[in-house]
Formats: sequence, C-alpha cells, structure tokens
Amino acid sequence: MLNRVRSAVAHLVSSGGAPPPRPKSPDLSNAPSAQPAVPAEAPRSPPARAGSGSSAPAKTVEARASFSRPTFLQLSPGGLRRADDHAGRAVQSPPDTGRRLPWSTGYAEVINAGKSRHNEDQACCEVVYVEGRRSVSGVPREPSRGQGLCFYYWGLFDGHAGGGAAEMASRLLHRHIREQLKDLSCWSSQKEVTHESLVVGAIENAFQFMDEQMARERRGHQVEGGCCALVVVYLLGKVYVANAGDSRAIIVRNGEIIPMSREFTPETERQRLQLLGFLKPELLGGEFTHLEFPRRIQPKELGQRMLYRDQNMTGWAYKKIELEDLRFPLVCGEGKKARVMATIGVTRGLGDHNLKVCSSTLPIKPFLSCFPEVRVYDLTQYEHCPDDVLVLGTDGLWDVTSDCEVAATVDRVLSAYEPNDPSRYTALAQALVLGARGTPRDRGWRLPNNKLGSGDDISVFVIPLGGPGSYS
Amino acid sequence: MLNRVRSAVAHLVSSGGAPPPRPKSPDLSNAPSAQPAVPAEAPRSPPARAGSGSSAPAKTVEARASFSRPTFLQLSPGGLRRADDHAGRAVQSPPDTGRRLPWSTGYAEVINAGKSRHNEDQACCEVVYVEGRRSVSGVPREPSRGQGLCFYYWGLFDGHAGGGAAEMASRLLHRHIREQLKDLSCWSSQKEVTHESLVVGAIENAFQFMDEQMARERRGHQVEGGCCALVVVYLLGKVYVANAGDSRAIIVRNGEIIPMSREFTPETERQRLQLLGFLKPELLGGEFTHLEFPRRIQPKELGQRMLYRDQNMTGWAYKKIELEDLRFPLVCGEGKKARVMATIGVTRGLGDHNLKVCSSTLPIKPFLSCFPEVRVYDLTQYEHCPDDVLVLGTDGLWDVTSDCEVAATVDRVLSAYEPNDPSRYTALAQALVLGARGTPRDRGWRLPNNKLGSGDDISVFVIPLGGPGSYS
Repeated sequence: MLNRVRSAVAHLVSSGGAPPPRPKSPDLSNAPSAQPAVPAEAPRSPPARAGSGSSAPAKTVEARASFSRPTFLQLSPGGLRRADDHAGRAVQSPPDTGRRLPWSTGYAEVINAGKSRHNEDQACCEVVYVEGRRSVSGVPREPSRGQGLCFYYWGLFDGHAGGGAAEMASRLLHRHIREQLKDLSCWSSQKEVTHESLVVGAIENAFQFMDEQMARERRGHQVEGGCCALVVVYLLGKVYVANAGDSRAIIVRNGEIIPMSREFTPETERQRLQLLGFLKPELLGGEFTHLEFPRRIQPKELGQRMLYRDQNMTGWAYKKIELEDLRFPLVCGEGKKARVMATIGVTRGLGDHNLKVCSSTLPIKPFLSCFPEVRVYDLTQYEHCPDDVLVLGTDGLWDVTSDCEVAATVDRVLSAYEPNDPSRYTALAQALVLGARGTPRDRGWRLPNNKLGSGDDISVFVIPLGGPGSYS
Repeated sequence: MLNRVRSAVAHLVSSGGAPPPRPKSPDLSNAPSAQPAVPAEAPRSPPARAGSGSSAPAKTVEARASFSRPTFLQLSPGGLRRADDHAGRAVQSPPDTGRRLPWSTGYAEVINAGKSRHNEDQACCEVVYVEGRRSVSGVPREPSRGQGLCFYYWGLFDGHAGGGAAEMASRLLHRHIREQLKDLSCWSSQKEVTHESLVVGAIENAFQFMDEQMARERRGHQVEGGCCALVVVYLLGKVYVANAGDSRAIIVRNGEIIPMSREFTPETERQRLQLLGFLKPELLGGEFTHLEFPRRIQPKELGQRMLYRDQNMTGWAYKKIELEDLRFPLVCGEGKKARVMATIGVTRGLGDHNLKVCSSTLPIKPFLSCFPEVRVYDLTQYEHCPDDVLVLGTDGLWDVTSDCEVAATVDRVLSAYEPNDPSRYTALAQALVLGARGTPRDRGWRLPNNKLGSGDDISVFVIPLGGPGSYS
C-alpha cells in the first residue's frame, strides 16, 4: 500500500457513503442537472481515472459528457468549439453587443493548454432577488409588506477531476445563498448578532448545503470531482468575498492592493489537517503520520533525533524517531506540489465526495472542508473612483502573476480608456488572461520574459467598485 | 447535573489520570519544589475548594502552604508581610540599591484586594546560559568548541485556584526552554527550517514539557490550579514573545503601539473549542452542546428556528431547535464572564490537570491548551531609542487600562526622567500598577475617574528596547 501511496497516484472510487438527505427547497430541485466533463489529469488535483473502480465504464461517462461555458458568454456552436480549442487558446469574453454584465463587470477566460479535455473553470454573474421567508414564529407575513431584497453575485469555480462539480456549483450556489438569505427578512436586531454576521452565516451555510447537495445527487448527475469556489456577494453597501480553495480576490484601490482572500492549501492549512489526523487517527488508517518532518524519514534513522512539527507548533523541534514516524506524511511536498495524503493539492472546496486515497478505502473528504473564509469590505467607507476594482482569478492567473503585476495592469489598461467607457473592464480582464497565458512559441506558451505561461484554465472577473457601474 | 452546571460552580477534584512519565533532565529534577498558596475564589478562574474531593484535607494543604514573591524583589520578612497585605496594597519593586535587573528592566506588582489569600501572580527575570548538546548523530562534541549561548528571559505567571502552578512555572519554565535550546547548537541550515523557527519550536515544546511536568508532579508538590504564562526570550537580535492565557504584551515604539500577543479566552477561541467538542463528543459527556446560541434555549422553543454558530462559522444562521440543543452550551457568557463548560475563563495556560466540571468526571483540560502563540520581533530592524519599551502585564493591568493609556503613561513617565537614568523603567512599571490599582475610597479602590480600579493581582514588566540597557 505504502509504495503505491508514495507514487502519489490516486483515483476516484465511487462510494455509497452519502450523508442522509436534507429536505430540498423546491426552487433548487428544478435546477438544470450538471453534466460532467470527461476527467483527465490535472496539477494540484487528483488525477482522475474515469470509471476505474466505478460501476459506469469510461465510455458511458464519455457519452453523457457535454461541454458548457457560462451562459453570459452567449457562445454560438462555433464559438463554443473555439473556446474548447487547446491549440488556439482564444480568450473568451461576453460580446460587446447586447446586455452587459451588472456593474459593467469585465470577464475573460481561456482554456488550458491540454491538461484536461475541457475548460474545468466555470463562472456565474447574476442579480438575485430574495423573497422574504415566513416569519420565524410561523405566522406568515403579508406579501404586500415588501420583505424582499436583491443581491449582486459573482462566482468563479475551478474544477478538478472533471468539470461536473464546478458546473453544478455555478448553477446552484447562488440559489443556496438566496435560500439562506430569506431569513434576513425576519431578523430584528439581537445582542451580538449584526446584520453583517447574518449575511456571513448565510454564505457559510450555503456552501455547506451546496456540498451536501453534491453528495446526495452525485450519482444521478454524474457529479464527480470537485471544485474551488470564490464568490462575491454585494448586499446593502457591503461586499462579501467568500473563498474555499486556491483562487484569489484582491481589491486594487488607488493603486493600493487590499487582499480579499487567502488560499487554502496543504501548506497554509497544515495545522488544521494535522489536528484532524491527531484527534481522529482512524482517518489516517495506520498508513499516514500526522507529524511533519523536513524530509521523508528513512528506516535506518530509527532512534535518531530529527526535526518535526505537530498540530500545535509553528516552529520546529527535535524528537527521537519511532516506528510510526516512518509512515507517509499526511501533508507532503512544497508549493504547488504540496498534497494531502499524496492525493490533492487544495484543502477547501465543494464536491470530491468520491475521492479516496489510491487503492484504499481512506476518504480524503474529511480533510477537505467545504467552508469558505468570508471577508467583508464596506463600500460606503471610501469614495471609489472608476479605476478601483475587485479582481477575481482562478489559480491559472495567480500561478504566474503577482498581486503587484495585476495592479500594474489595472493601471496600464484602465488609463488607456475613458473612465466612463464600460468596455474597459472587459479589456482589463482580457489583458490579465492574456498576460498569464502568454503566446505560443517553441516548447509551449511563453510570457514576454520567456518564462512559461500558465497551462491551466484561466478565468478572471474585474468588478468596478465605483464609476459607471452604479450599484445604488 | 445540569442544574448544578448551570449554577456555574465548579471545583477541583484530584484525579489519577496523569500521562506516562517522560525522562526528566537532571538539571530540572533538583529545582526547588513549588509550594501551593491556599486557593480561594477568583474571577475568570474556577473557584477552588481546597481538599474537596481530594485525599488531603484542607488543613493539611493550609499547613504546607507558604507564601513567596519573586526573589529579585529581595523582600525581607517584613517586606514579605507588606507585599501580602490586602488592605494596604503596597506596590512592590526591586530595591534601588543592589544589582539591577538585566537591561535595567522595570518591575512592579501589587496584591489583589482580597479575592485570594495571596498574590497568585509570579514573575521571573534571568540571564540563562545554554550549554551545547551532544551532536545529533550521537558523537560528542568537544567542550572546548564553545557551543554555548545565552538568552535573556522574562516571565509573568498569573495563577488561579492557588498559586502553586504559577510558582512552579516561574522557577522552571526557563529551564525547560534552556533544555530545548540545547539542540540549537547542533543545528545546521536545512531546507525550510530557519534558526528563528527552531527557537519558536523550542519555546513551544518547553511549554508542553512544563505542563507535563506539572501533571507528573502535582501530587508530590501540591501543584493545584493553573496559571497563564507570558514569557519573553531575547536571543541573537530577536525578541520572542510567547503567550498562553490572558496576559498581554505590547511594544510602545516612538509612541506607536505594536501588539505582541493576543488573549486566549472562551470567546477568542470559540471555534477551536467547538471543533474539539464536535470531533470528540465524549468530552461533552452528553451534558453540553458544542453549538453556540445568542441565549439559552428554553424547552418550549423546541422545533422553532433559532440563530446558532458551529465550529466552522464566523457568522450566524438559523436552525430548527432539537432536543440536544437544550444542553448547556460549551462556551457561554460574555467578556470577562465567558466560561468553558461554565467553569474556566481562560483557554490556554499551564497546569489545571485536576480541574473537572462540577460534580462530574468531565475533565476541562482537553479544552485548555498549554501551547503558546509565539510572536517574533527583530530588534535589529529598527533603531530603538531609550523611550521604546516592551510592556508585559497580567490581566489585572489590562482589565482597567487600554493600550493607548499605557502608551500615554510611557510617554508621561519616561519624559520626566533623564534618558540614561536606569530607574525610569521601574518608575514606569510602578506608575502603571498604581494607575490600574487606584486609591482606596468609599466602596473600594477607585481610579481618578471614580471607576473601580482592578481588584486583581497586578504585575508589570517594562523592558527597554534601546538605550541604557545595552544587550549587545
């Protein structure tokens, strides 16, 4: 077993361990069913072997698979083919003609360089109306009292091991948020509980309910794999940025960078993962150790003193090597190669309910958390100009572009357009995607400095915080 | 049971659940034995009932109890009596004559207004020499190679339910740090592992070993109760501030406040406590719920929708009240009245191995963590002037004094002295303690604004970061 784990090859095995069903809300049940893309190998994600260990053979999955891009791109069949072309990697944006995205939001995306058959990123941008719920005490409110409210919503979903989870999340997560926000209408000020903390709680619970729905419906809808989710909710003057995964959001305001998310990886979440392995050793199946060492321990080092870190430590100290320290480390690898149980490189996200350690019944899911971190930005506390933007990107952008480089591109592109030109934000999104993709040259896609561009799917939202996209 | 828990009365019950002994290092074993103060009721700490449920009757404990203050105070028997006088509450400082504390550190303390029989704070200030350990590979190094190093050390220990744990920690914790730092001498640069992270790891492990020693020796040395620990280590240009509890450290530099610690309370550690209760429900004994509600749930509210937070949430959301939500909340109360399992108001610290929920076998200790948070401040990155200081205080100071008020006192007192007058830091520590204690007036100790002063033990270190206390 250990040798096979060491080879860091894992696969998907379908399992029947779904949690008991929750009652579905009616407006969620008639949502379109998500259909899977054909899974293939992807960095930072478990290599998918479609059908291996599953009752459905690969060909059946293939036959059912369909490829879709965000509806707001309004792609024709020909456009859809171009968006799916790994060789050309044409940048896609909503058409200049027709209805703009809310707030004149800019958007651009490009498919990967061949690491998976389809673009496994998905995106969503909506204005969502929330009807008030019946009051808490059970007495129905009169509809005429106008208990409803609206929120603006943007979501980026970076799928792995197939596009099914990302597509399902892009169609449904905002509906879960809407469902949770219905309670806002019957809220009256209570000790300690602010309006803001209710919106945060609503988003947190929506992620959980979305994840539970994926667990329930994964068989029927072939939702294999999982996805990172980065969403923005604007409600009553405040921007809520919720992140579960390794996408990133920053605000660029007057040239200054304000981080609005942090990435959740085996390295940034080491202590949480180690604590879980320590408190629930059965999750490690006798195959893994929750301790971290600077390198793999060799059997000949038994009894020697070696540096280690446990779930409580941020520093390093020495311990005497014991037999169980020879087990494979729960967290191993560095940077983009860091993995949990040699299997997956992100530690937050939706889906992945079938994911197991290779040739093992050990589930990865308890280490993967669906809960986002939510940061709040009060738009009313600052007078924003048309050049102030919130930039959301999947890791395809951030793998090769620093925050400062993004801020420089924001300045360069926006200053080339009139402040009231609504197309400037799409031009900026395109420039960011192009800058991360590079151009095709000998041996791959290259940046101007001749470094490799991102071979990953790249998706970017540029949300203006002031100026033409009035949100009052 | 539940009613008794509700009354928030808990007591100490001796238990035999000590962890298996670790080999003691020789220079720790001949340390002076800590002797307990007689425990009595204290805010934020479990009310101690000395001897109840223990094999030793209260009188025996009383007979063994002795009262001690830090040796650097050089108190005569008469001075010791004055330091122990609740009525006068005279401020104690090291004498002006004789050897100063390292770096001309200032120190002052005052006993509580009667909440416990003795001052349960303790303090330590030492220069500690670390001999090099034999090399990791087992080959002894030659002593002539000069592998040793020195560190400067300051510690504040705020005891509860007796002074035994605080006294033991004040005598031994720096020895554990010395023991851990012996490994530094055989460190050679390794990937990812910096010198700084080794010092942090050494301090983290020293806290754990100190806590384990208290567990092993609590019967022999009558070390009941527990203590918060706030320690500072200066080594090779860097200041390491380690905090486990609700004491606080701030740097005041050129008038600016730099927080060097955060407090660990049931409120600040809610999610960690809830996660532990969720993953290990047996720790809650069917008596407590890990969920938080804005108020106690009434039985008549079963089936209704109510706001709640779980271990994953920072916001609030609604859930339908079920039977187990009627259990007593794991974390309850607000501010200084917040408690874990209705018992204790700090969530990090040393000792407390006997602490149980009232009339129950449920131990509190798994929720109390002995691990500190360590912050690092690089002294070489800034040119410090004689007015730049690191201020350490137990909660007796901070309960009635804000960071800004401390910074104002730093400015006011230090500017009244010549920069090279080494007594200015003790004068500052005294001013801070006096300002928090107030003066005796009708109905208690009052501050100039007529608010109540702190009735708690108050202890303050003022560590100069530049100027006369040269540390090169």
